[in-house]
Amino acid sequence: MPLLTNLTADRKTFVTHLECSMTGEIYPADEVHGLSRVGRPLLVRYDLPAIAAHLDRAALQSRETDLWRWRELLPVRHVRDIVSLGEIETPLVPLPVSGGANVLVKDEGRLPTGSFKARGLVMAVAMAKALGIKRIAMPTNGNAGAALAAYATRCGIETVVFCPDDTPDINVQEIALQGARVWRVNGLIDDCGAIVGEGAKQGRWFDFSTLKEPYRIEGKKTMGLELASQFGWELPDAIFYPTGGGTGLIGMWKAFDELEALGWIGPKRPKMFAIQAAGCAPIVKAFDDGTEHAERWENAQTVAAGIRVPRAVGDFLILRAVRASGGKALAVEDAAIEAAVQQAARQDGLLLCPEGGATLAAYHYALSAGLVSAADRVVLFNCATGLKYPMADDSRTLDRHAPIDYDAL
Amino acid sequence: MPLLTNLTADRKTFVTHLECSMTGEIYPADEVHGLSRVGRPLLVRYDLPAIAAHLDRAALQSRETDLWRWRELLPVRHVRDIVSLGEIETPLVPLPVSGGANVLVKDEGRLPTGSFKARGLVMAVAMAKALGIKRIAMPTNGNAGAALAAYATRCGIETVVFCPDDTPDINVQEIALQGARVWRVNGLIDDCGAIVGEGAKQGRWFDFSTLKEPYRIEGKKTMGLELASQFGWELPDAIFYPTGGGTGLIGMWKAFDELEALGWIGPKRPKMFAIQAAGCAPIVKAFDDGTEHAERWENAQTVAAGIRVPRAVGDFLILRAVRASGGKALAVEDAAIEAAVQQAARQDGLLLCPEGGATLAAYHYALSAGLVSAADRVVLFNCATGLKYPMADDSRTLDRHAPIDYDAL
Repeated sequence: MPLLTNLTADRKTFVTHLECSMTGEIYPADEVHGLSRVGRPLLVRYDLPAIAAHLDRAALQSRETDLWRWRELLPVRHVRDIVSLGEIETPLVPLPVSGGANVLVKDEGRLPTGSFKARGLVMAVAMAKALGIKRIAMPTNGNAGAALAAYATRCGIETVVFCPDDTPDINVQEIALQGARVWRVNGLIDDCGAIVGEGAKQGRWFDFSTLKEPYRIEGKKTMGLELASQFGWELPDAIFYPTGGGTGLIGMWKAFDELEALGWIGPKRPKMFAIQAAGCAPIVKAFDDGTEHAERWENAQTVAAGIRVPRAVGDFLILRAVRASGGKALAVEDAAIEAAVQQAARQDGLLLCPEGGATLAAYHYALSAGLVSAADRVVLFNCATGLKYPMADDSRTLDRHAPIDYDAL
Repeated sequence: MPLLTNLTADRKTFVTHLECSMTGEIYPADEVHGLSRVGRPLLVRYDLPAIAAHLDRAALQSRETDLWRWRELLPVRHVRDIVSLGEIETPLVPLPVSGGANVLVKDEGRLPTGSFKARGLVMAVAMAKALGIKRIAMPTNGNAGAALAAYATRCGIETVVFCPDDTPDINVQEIALQGARVWRVNGLIDDCGAIVGEGAKQGRWFDFSTLKEPYRIEGKKTMGLELASQFGWELPDAIFYPTGGGTGLIGMWKAFDELEALGWIGPKRPKMFAIQAAGCAPIVKAFDDGTEHAERWENAQTVAAGIRVPRAVGDFLILRAVRASGGKALAVEDAAIEAAVQQAARQDGLLLCPEGGATLAAYHYALSAGLVSAADRVVLFNCATGLKYPMADDSRTLDRHAPIDYDAL
């Protein structure tokens, strides 16, 4: 019976080692790791020739359509460690009016807990389970905490989550309901991260901050794997990605290299556009300044909470990928974000999250600036369901006991 | 290139006619229809032998995994009329702790606009487009209105939506943002339906009430088609379905018959359990009374707004299917619904909507009453994302400027 085969059939695994993304120093697989000795993210490496000999694209595509179809390119070695809430392949939704004939939204709000954070966390939690970790803490702007809580609860790992005190109620509530302890902190995500870091140093919990453990990036990588498959193994011309910690952008870039090493795609890469809010744009500043690293952004503020990330530990990896791709880092104003969310909903019936709106706003700018053409096949990432965010109420009331003026309805 | 092939490749279609679900009277396809002459739902009929000669299960499963892979069994004749927001196949999520080893949740919250209403409305709107309808009105408890607004906006059809005045804000807001005119009415869904009916009689709009046009049921039918495919063409032993208007239950039952006629499944059927809230249980009462139709339920109230439906025009179809299947109609108290939502979230990390919680509560009752056994393979329908519903806030606040007591975190 084919039911949930990707979750029940053990397969060969191919992880060889981890290496420092900055120095290339090698670290052994199958041990608990945080950042590298120089304080930078670790990347998981695979025996790609062996994968190429073991699996081809047709075999892959005959599997059920979920994240775990890519298991040979993922770090989880045993099916018993997989913790799943149904990680489907997210659809590509055309945006013909508010975007254009060649604009597709990758709608990540369809994932468990309603955001792309599920991709990273399902992998990181599975590896935490495999490595025997019992207690995890994380700073979050909301969606990552929700995904962590759901997956950790599912396998009995205790979680403590710290979020800025203005995190939307719905995020805080879902995190708590899904079994985590939640603290609202008077500060931003990196202030929350400092508390998590201190507790980790004291041995109270494992630090699950973005890129501070090696496996979230492997989960996020599946966005790139899926795009390759969905586009018939020829990548789109440009990708607009809302960039906070940037794990997904780094992950997709890594995925493309791995797919090319397998011989499944050619050398062509999309232009990668890292989209930030004008009120918190450290990567854009570093890109424009031509620096390798980004400075902390002071007084960060934007309606797009998911990209209100003043400092990213993987800054240099984001910048390298964007530059190598011929793309650009772009900042958009909050007003443009809000207008884009309205535009997509009212013109194409698609409710984006603010960060998704930012990618649409940035696409319009990029088109007008000649950075992309209307003929380019473009993917915008809608990283979470728009239902998690405040909306205006334009309803009117009608008294059914009074005479009804049907002309006015 | 395989990109969105189900949405771009025209295929042969097989609709022969429509027929009255009560009398069997035949109506021509390709014309605008509401209810039959006796005021009952119309059912779409297909040339099933021709489909069987044209398509087999392997060919079907090689297609992209979305609702439109089933096109030969659906009423839309031309690909140009398809209005899509990415109708993925919804995942089956195990509920090992709060449910049991053989309990799977069909998580319909992953569909566009966050609920299973998308299945019905994507089909009904596509057919409205095909038939040249320009203005649609609908009574809704929330989720159907959101799906209607999104799909109708996407193809330029004007919509007017009426909902009970205590409909959750998030539903009202998303309906408005997605381009519909929304009215809050001091009454229940059938009171809203009376207004829609009067306006339709006056020729102001087309009436999109549940089962009052023939195509929502065809869209909802895909839940049954997907289950058959996902279970390897052998259906589960029992299905627990939250039942308001009951379109999905009726649709699945129809789907199973069509699949058997194609030779794709055998005669075995799941026990169908129609789940209602104790505060609005007209189908349960009719089931227990042994009647063919259900009386309107007075003073309906429940936290599960989606199943607060005092009267269902397809009552006799629901009752027939449940009885023929050897299942039962069951009512659960609001307290049990709320406890089940908590249980699934805190024990299995899965956030259900109240109606989904009702199915879990009913499953526990059915197990204790011997209506199903723990060995039965059971599917519970979570009809919408739990994110649309109120949750408690169990967070605490932490002052990062004060000394932090890490032992207390």
